Amino acid sequence: MSRPLLVTVIGKSAKNPSDPVPPQALRAAEEVGRLLAERGAVVVSGGLSGVMEAVSRGAKSAGGLVIGILPGFDKRDANEYVDIALTTGMGWMRNTLTVRAADAVIMISGGIGTLNELTVAYEDKPTVILEGTGGWSDRIREIAYKGKHLDEAGIAELHFAKTPAEAVDLAHRLAAGPEARPQGAKREFQS
Amino acid sequence: MSRPLLVTVIGKSAKNPSDPVPPQALRAAEEVGRLLAERGAVVVSGGLSGVMEAVSRGAKSAGGLVIGILPGFDKRDANEYVDIALTTGMGWMRNTLTVRAADAVIMISGGIGTLNELTVAYEDKPTVILEGTGGWSDRIREIAYKGKHLDEAGIAELHFAKTPAEAVDLAHRLAAGPEARPQGAKREFQS
Amino acid sequence: MSRPLLVTVIGKSAKNPSDPVPPQALRAAEEVGRLLAERGAVVVSGGLSGVMEAVSRGAKSAGGLVIGILPGFDKRDANEYVDIALTTGMGWMRNTLTVRAADAVIMISGGIGTLNELTVAYEDKPTVILEGTGGWSDRIREIAYKGKHLDEAGIAELHFAKTPAEAVDLAHRLAAGPEARPQGAKREFQS
Amino acid sequence: MSRPLLVTVIGKSAKNPSDPVPPQALRAAEEVGRLLAERGAVVVSGGLSGVMEAVSRGAKSAGGLVIGILPGFDKRDANEYVDIALTTGMGWMRNTLTVRAADAVIMISGGIGTLNELTVAYEDKPTVILEGTGGWSDRIREIAYKGKHLDEAGIAELHFAKTPAEAVDLAHRLAAGPEARPQGAKREFQS
Repeated sequence: MSRPLLVTVIGKSAKNPSDPVPPQALRAAEEVGRLLAERGAVVVSGGLSGVMEAVSRGAKSAGGLVIGILPGFDKRDANEYVDIALTTGMGWMRNTLTVRAADAVIMISGGIGTLNELTVAYEDKPTVILEGTGGWSDRIREIAYKGKHLDEAGIAELHFAKTPAEAVDLAHRLAAGPEARPQGAKREFQS
Repeated sequence: MSRPLLVTVIGKSAKNPSDPVPPQALRAAEEVGRLLAERGAVVVSGGLSGVMEAVSRGAKSAGGLVIGILPGFDKRDANEYVDIALTTGMGWMRNTLTVRAADAVIMISGGIGTLNELTVAYEDKPTVILEGTGGWSDRIREIAYKGKHLDEAGIAELHFAKTPAEAVDLAHRLAAGPEARPQGAKREFQS
Repeated sequence: MSRPLLVTVIGKSAKNPSDPVPPQALRAAEEVGRLLAERGAVVVSGGLSGVMEAVSRGAKSAGGLVIGILPGFDKRDANEYVDIALTTGMGWMRNTLTVRAADAVIMISGGIGTLNELTVAYEDKPTVILEGTGGWSDRIREIAYKGKHLDEAGIAELHFAKTPAEAVDLAHRLAAGPEARPQGAKREFQS
Repeated sequence: MSRPLLVTVIGKSAKNPSDPVPPQALRAAEEVGRLLAERGAVVVSGGLSGVMEAVSRGAKSAGGLVIGILPGFDKRDANEYVDIALTTGMGWMRNTLTVRAADAVIMISGGIGTLNELTVAYEDKPTVILEGTGGWSDRIREIAYKGKHLDEAGIAELHFAKTPAEAVDLAHRLAAGPEARPQGAKREFQS
């Protein structure tokens, strides 16, 4: 059988009024959501505000399916565009689940929670950072080893995109390639 | 907005060849899946074999959406009727997530994993046990306190059904009632 | 090297005033804690009230080390006899961790949370139920398949004791035997 | 009562032979472990190799207590200086638990796993980065917002030390101060 691609979109939340999400990040997220839905991918996110809400809205506008993996126990925490609200009760630890569910990851802007999710994605998931969206997405290339690794040995590689279309296209291509093979079980339990 | 109801179906897996799932459990699970899909509910399960596979097949036969929350890291572990395969990498601990995601729970037959999920569901989720399907589903009424509680104080109440139609109907009614209010956060962190 | 044995004690909490822990359970738990400490074992529990508190008090009275694995984020939730309070923020899901940490498990009395922990322990950990302590501990033998299994196929076996000394002795012997081999990784990720 | 301080030490593992842990990181970790033990603190780590092993060895050399929170199911994965090996079966997700258990966090060198743990620690735990130990510990000050924040709004603050003694001292002082108040439950479940 063939399942739809699951693309987890990670990005800055709007929980802190004094630290708003950049408008270009919200626009980009909505566009990413729309493009993913048009290509038949399912959008997965943390289900809350900011980039998570914008990507969900975009996906819904194109008739897509949207999954939100929530930190708490109450489905009403989900933004209004989430179709499937999965309550985990794990707090931020749910970030790891949001990423583990993915076939590919797209990062847009980003605060501390997004950076956490990026570190989870790095080794095991094809990951695309959409630059020009502010927050950590505009800083990673500069701080990464050789501009693309989050470890000195370079066991995995981050990818970058400049437009929503490029990010979505790259995520699809990477998810179909050798980086997408499930290696988690092996890696996760080694020393 | 109005989200579809998420009904988690828990039940015996077919992992142990020397301990087959009763045929009536598989028939009931398929019927439960079909009826849930016909009423627009989303079927959630552990995504693997036995009852999990049968309920997924039933839901797909009626055009429903099927979510599988997997113990491992590899989406290929999911049965072929799962649309959305969520890999958790938590082993059996994912049982708790499968139940936490639910608006209501239906139990069909059941081995040790199902019994584990029932104990998770008991306090926080409206739960219906489909009797006549073998395994733990046919033993709970007898062993429960007053035939319906899993604790002496009776803080929650199990529900029973005799047919797939009755189970699905009851799950919908309970999910719309007072038992469905999210109380997890409050309860989970108390002493 | 040789590490101390970790024995996880599961049992009824005192969180519900209308559902008190039987006095004989508290006496037994304290004695179990004392005996475990005298034999050099480390006591692990959920760190809260009732049996968890009594076993911790017993262990401390004999100079033992006590670990509490807490559901919440606040170490002050731990009872006063816990030396090492590990906050997990996972709610009841921490029950699985409490059991996974164990070399052997002893069950004393028990409500719904204890029953949940028993189902986690069944397949992977040597488990001793101390009978005569009320709650689920006095009901399991009757409801188990053949008086000792929690699944029809009998893939594992529960053990029973009539006194704290017998329970502690049995836990030590089982932890040194073939049931104690780590098989979780293999089992947990199978279908 | 007064419990010992739990200090979680995060740092580079030695799992990748082509990416060795810097010798100065191992020396610093051993010294940190020794100093923590001398002050009565309990050392918590991921229980495996590299910095985790060195800090454990140091703590044992001073008679301290060492806890290892392991990704897998097998206690034999722990390094030989771990007294209490807690198997979680959650893979890398256990990083979150390692940090959540802490009263304070000290970071030494660091690869991708350490960076993950730092992002978990940032908001909720007093965190000290021991500079001069290579890896991410020598890069954070440069890449952090204003040299000390991992988010633009600056909701929390990282601390830096130049020597093991300074790191241990700072961790103790921070753990006794206002940054140490448990705020996780509140923060973790907000949008």
